[in-house]
Amino acid sequence: MASLKVPTNVPLPEEDAEQLHKAFAGWGTNEKLIISILAHRTSAQRSLIRSAYAATYNEDLLKALDKELSSDFERVVMLWTLDPAERDAFLAKESTKMFTKNNWVLVEIACTRSPLDLFKVKQAYQARYKKSLEEDVAQHTSGDLRKLLLPLVSTFRYEGDEVNMRLARSEAKLLHEKVSEKAYSDDDIIRILTTRSKAQLGATLNQYNNEYGNAINKNLKEDSDNEYLKLLRAAITCLTYPEKHFEKVLRLAINKMGTDEWALTRVVTRTEVDMERIKEEYQRRNSIPLHHAVAKDTSGDYEDMLVALLGHGDV
Amino acid sequence: MASLKVPTNVPLPEEDAEQLHKAFAGWGTNEKLIISILAHRTSAQRSLIRSAYAATYNEDLLKALDKELSSDFERVVMLWTLDPAERDAFLAKESTKMFTKNNWVLVEIACTRSPLDLFKVKQAYQARYKKSLEEDVAQHTSGDLRKLLLPLVSTFRYEGDEVNMRLARSEAKLLHEKVSEKAYSDDDIIRILTTRSKAQLGATLNQYNNEYGNAINKNLKEDSDNEYLKLLRAAITCLTYPEKHFEKVLRLAINKMGTDEWALTRVVTRTEVDMERIKEEYQRRNSIPLHHAVAKDTSGDYEDMLVALLGHGDV
Repeated sequence: MASLKVPTNVPLPEEDAEQLHKAFAGWGTNEKLIISILAHRTSAQRSLIRSAYAATYNEDLLKALDKELSSDFERVVMLWTLDPAERDAFLAKESTKMFTKNNWVLVEIACTRSPLDLFKVKQAYQARYKKSLEEDVAQHTSGDLRKLLLPLVSTFRYEGDEVNMRLARSEAKLLHEKVSEKAYSDDDIIRILTTRSKAQLGATLNQYNNEYGNAINKNLKEDSDNEYLKLLRAAITCLTYPEKHFEKVLRLAINKMGTDEWALTRVVTRTEVDMERIKEEYQRRNSIPLHHAVAKDTSGDYEDMLVALLGHGDV
Repeated sequence: MASLKVPTNVPLPEEDAEQLHKAFAGWGTNEKLIISILAHRTSAQRSLIRSAYAATYNEDLLKALDKELSSDFERVVMLWTLDPAERDAFLAKESTKMFTKNNWVLVEIACTRSPLDLFKVKQAYQARYKKSLEEDVAQHTSGDLRKLLLPLVSTFRYEGDEVNMRLARSEAKLLHEKVSEKAYSDDDIIRILTTRSKAQLGATLNQYNNEYGNAINKNLKEDSDNEYLKLLRAAITCLTYPEKHFEKVLRLAINKMGTDEWALTRVVTRTEVDMERIKEEYQRRNSIPLHHAVAKDTSGDYEDMLVALLGHGDV
């Protein structure tokens, strides 16, 4: 359920490229024109615009945007214009760098994308950085964090809907035993969460909830400052209830003193995937529509671009 | 460097399918005809023959072969006729089953195939078994064996040739420290072997050899009955010198009391990949051409099929 609004009659990629080139020309930049085009095209359409732009003007559209725009508005336009796999590869790379390390983002990419999309992220990562995502994640982590994060980004999960109820019962029991012993980084907890299909995990965690009276994430909460436990809970939420995870990221990004523009921008690129669900979840939890909350907390072209991506701009 | 011999004028897939159907007809089966066709077609050609056979006779060629053939000959024809990714998926599944468990084969598939080929094996595995290779490997192993095998089958390695020499030196040093401490299942040993590209690993292990006077596998040999150490050495050989690994598998399969037909058959399916190198390595180590050794140790149609696949039959 995407929020993206695309006009009924989409101009040719060459026409869009020409308009964008005009928006960059002369003194000043026509940000409104940029928003009116890029915020209302699908990733396939944006990719064609990039090709047309490169063919006509002999320059990568991203390079041109980089020259013309700045600050938060630049970031959202650039991130959005990237192909989804390239965007995730970029976000993942940022997340393994020493000064921008963000394990939360790695969990998000590994667990909310489909298995095939995650594989495409790895291909894009290798094409751009000449290394594997796995080796960078492994090198920048250690101990329990590595034990959890590395298999999360490595496994090619099965994507089918089949569920083995016998297995769900036995693994729910196993999870409950380990959690009761507070053996949170036990091999079997990590094995189950990092290798089972999302459908199978869903069945196992439902079984856990039914049998033991609590969602597993409730039982993993005791020591709230433990980074490993936080990531474990985030992984579980991302795998089974992604819009709940994104709602939380947005809530923390918007509500705290000073907006976390990185997080806000990142989540808004979900507009082509599951933004409608995220908006519902946000409204339910915060009693205010997401685009109002975003508009209150941001301004100018950045605000306009975000609101457009949330499906509330003019097409 | 493949050993496969394909005739200059390959018949149409429909003609091959018709000949195979004739080979199955009436009393008895014409094994020579089957060999003369299937042992001399590439995987792409065999796949077209399968499609043509299914379209004309409304039956999967593999099912027909299964009905007509038996024992070792059946096994080699069936394994060979499968698409390479399907074949590896089948071999991997056999290797995770309780009674046919074979971690050696899992290491071989994970480490001698290219990263993209390994990914195709995982896709074929999921299509056929409705589960991921990772979850089956994880479920059937534990402790140090899982710690090594699971990332070996999980990681999508970088395939490029770029080598970082500074990294090679620092990781050679790290490996040497851990090996000297006999910390063979140390996180960093496993991290380096399971996540680095083959080119990078090659540089690191050369550096190790130059700096410390011994190949790493020499230093990993002390306790020869340790299954983990055996697999660790096999992984290193498969990643850096695959023909040496396959030579050893063949030598053990042929030389011991009673031939290990499973292993022999499995290695001979490398004929489309690197069989010429394996043959050179075998000749060098055993002072007898591989096809002579195989012919001495096998008989009948099974022998004829193997020898044909080794590039010594009539086309």
